Amino acid sequence: MKKFDFAIVGATGMVGRTFIKVLEERNLPINKIYFLASSRSAGKKISFFDKEYTIEELSEKSFDKNIDIALFSAGAAASKKFAPIAASKGCVVVDNSSAWRMDSQIPLVVPEVNPQDIKWHNGIIANPNCSTIQAVVALKPLQDEYTIKRIVYSTYQAVSGAGLQGYKDLENGIKGEAPKKFPHPIAGNCLPHIDVFLPNGYTKEEMKMVNETRKILGVPDMKITATTVRVPVFDSHSESINVEFEKQFDLDGLKGILKNAPGIIVKDDPGSSVYPMPVDTAGRDETFVGRIRRDESVENGVNLWVVADNIRKGAATNTVQIAQELIKMWNAYGKSKS
Amino acid sequence: MKKFDFAIVGATGMVGRTFIKVLEERNLPINKIYFLASSRSAGKKISFFDKEYTIEELSEKSFDKNIDIALFSAGAAASKKFAPIAASKGCVVVDNSSAWRMDSQIPLVVPEVNPQDIKWHNGIIANPNCSTIQAVVALKPLQDEYTIKRIVYSTYQAVSGAGLQGYKDLENGIKGEAPKKFPHPIAGNCLPHIDVFLPNGYTKEEMKMVNETRKILGVPDMKITATTVRVPVFDSHSESINVEFEKQFDLDGLKGILKNAPGIIVKDDPGSSVYPMPVDTAGRDETFVGRIRRDESVENGVNLWVVADNIRKGAATNTVQIAQELIKMWNAYGKSKS
Repeated sequence: MKKFDFAIVGATGMVGRTFIKVLEERNLPINKIYFLASSRSAGKKISFFDKEYTIEELSEKSFDKNIDIALFSAGAAASKKFAPIAASKGCVVVDNSSAWRMDSQIPLVVPEVNPQDIKWHNGIIANPNCSTIQAVVALKPLQDEYTIKRIVYSTYQAVSGAGLQGYKDLENGIKGEAPKKFPHPIAGNCLPHIDVFLPNGYTKEEMKMVNETRKILGVPDMKITATTVRVPVFDSHSESINVEFEKQFDLDGLKGILKNAPGIIVKDDPGSSVYPMPVDTAGRDETFVGRIRRDESVENGVNLWVVADNIRKGAATNTVQIAQELIKMWNAYGKSKS
Repeated sequence: MKKFDFAIVGATGMVGRTFIKVLEERNLPINKIYFLASSRSAGKKISFFDKEYTIEELSEKSFDKNIDIALFSAGAAASKKFAPIAASKGCVVVDNSSAWRMDSQIPLVVPEVNPQDIKWHNGIIANPNCSTIQAVVALKPLQDEYTIKRIVYSTYQAVSGAGLQGYKDLENGIKGEAPKKFPHPIAGNCLPHIDVFLPNGYTKEEMKMVNETRKILGVPDMKITATTVRVPVFDSHSESINVEFEKQFDLDGLKGILKNAPGIIVKDDPGSSVYPMPVDTAGRDETFVGRIRRDESVENGVNLWVVADNIRKGAATNTVQIAQELIKMWNAYGKSKS
């Protein structure tokens, strides 16, 4: 099997560390691997498959080494600057930041949902926002069967989505310390504020869910609204999703479709207190769906409760899955972009 | 001013203790007061306005003393048994349990919303479910102005709603101990499970929100759906409420209506990170509304974020407010029911 040269950009962050774990678990055909980060982290050691690597400083020259695939999670500014440089040198960037997601020239991909969009990349493929990924994994099979008319999202998002300092804010907040990352305490609190506020009163996180869902599902005018909320949970985002369909559905049929869909585990036996929960999904790669109920307040409505590990499926795992799809494509059709 | 004789039934629970606090704060015209509870708590001491009282055992004879008003928070079974006995002896019961809420012969009252329903009581007035109270306080002025077409509720509910043991489950869960009240850990988790599951897949809590909202707003067929979720927050419930109206609205006009409505504090300056949060509302009697945004996914839609102290406005305060309205009515028209 052909092997490829990889780079991990932003190797020391929460998502970067998980890239390494997921790459080890999935055993990708890696020839060489480079770990890149800002000057702050350069020189530090990192281990991968029991071998020690030295983190190199990310620079314009980093991609002169014929790297095939770079997984980026170093923030939007670094992606804006370095992803085009990498792409110009024949490297395909799979980017976890928000920098390129809504660029019409850049595919935004969840492998269970729109793997075909990988084909038209021009050197950069964007990984969606964490809260969007788990939602579209659950919604795609229902969109195919029943055609979505409208979505109302309310999220319950873990502090790990705000990185290592988000995690610390909750740990330290429990001990009574003031937060450093969040604008208010997160321990014992709910913060209806993720990312910055926009002029329309929505947060950027809320508009990401609206716009990215549309792009990934390929329906630019899909009716969607969102309220995104940070809750005092360390890992895994939960989502209350209310959906209206164009077509009629049978509830058992709908459940069957979810059970057979890729990347989904249905946990829905409420009589036995079985439903998706953050404590069960942390560390998992699948999207968990439960509390599947007909919404009688509207024609063809359903309520879903969707939980997934936001750092794995919501970020690192999805990025690595995109790389796997890319390699599959290269193995089938040749690597034409280099 | 005429004074009345009171009884507090279930004086040792979380809501019962708060009855005492709120009665002290609001300085009701109390002549005598009796504290009643199960045999387990009988004999214990309780203080009210610096005077010590002995808790008496709740029995059929408890209401032989010409009690005017009894505030009940001793669970549905005790209310089912003792509220009719109290009422038959001329006492008006304001009941915080779910026992009588959906009885068509019993008014279900939030004083800011439907104080007029107190008039037709037959000795029992029901206090709604905590998550319903704060929702209808926010929705009533909008219903009056724009006529609600449909509501989608998603809640973020505090552990205090599950009583003292709910509180302990979170405290001890943070230290790694297994829960006693909840079916799964609540620390670091979200539980989409409040009260028991019904055959339609909804929890009783969810159907309470649907049915009680309809009864309080006086619209028996109002289109409503709900997903209710316990989150690791000690005090105050938060709610993401998506509403569709029949009539058009202007967003500033809608905000103005909320600002001028009784019992509401609008906190909505997202640019300065100002929005309702559990940590700010605990201990308060008002309902806090913020994140007020037009929902572009539907005609005449709005998203609201509504937070209130579930033990105060969601239970004890609302019950005491009902007693205050009752006394106001008696002072104006005489106490005709005894």
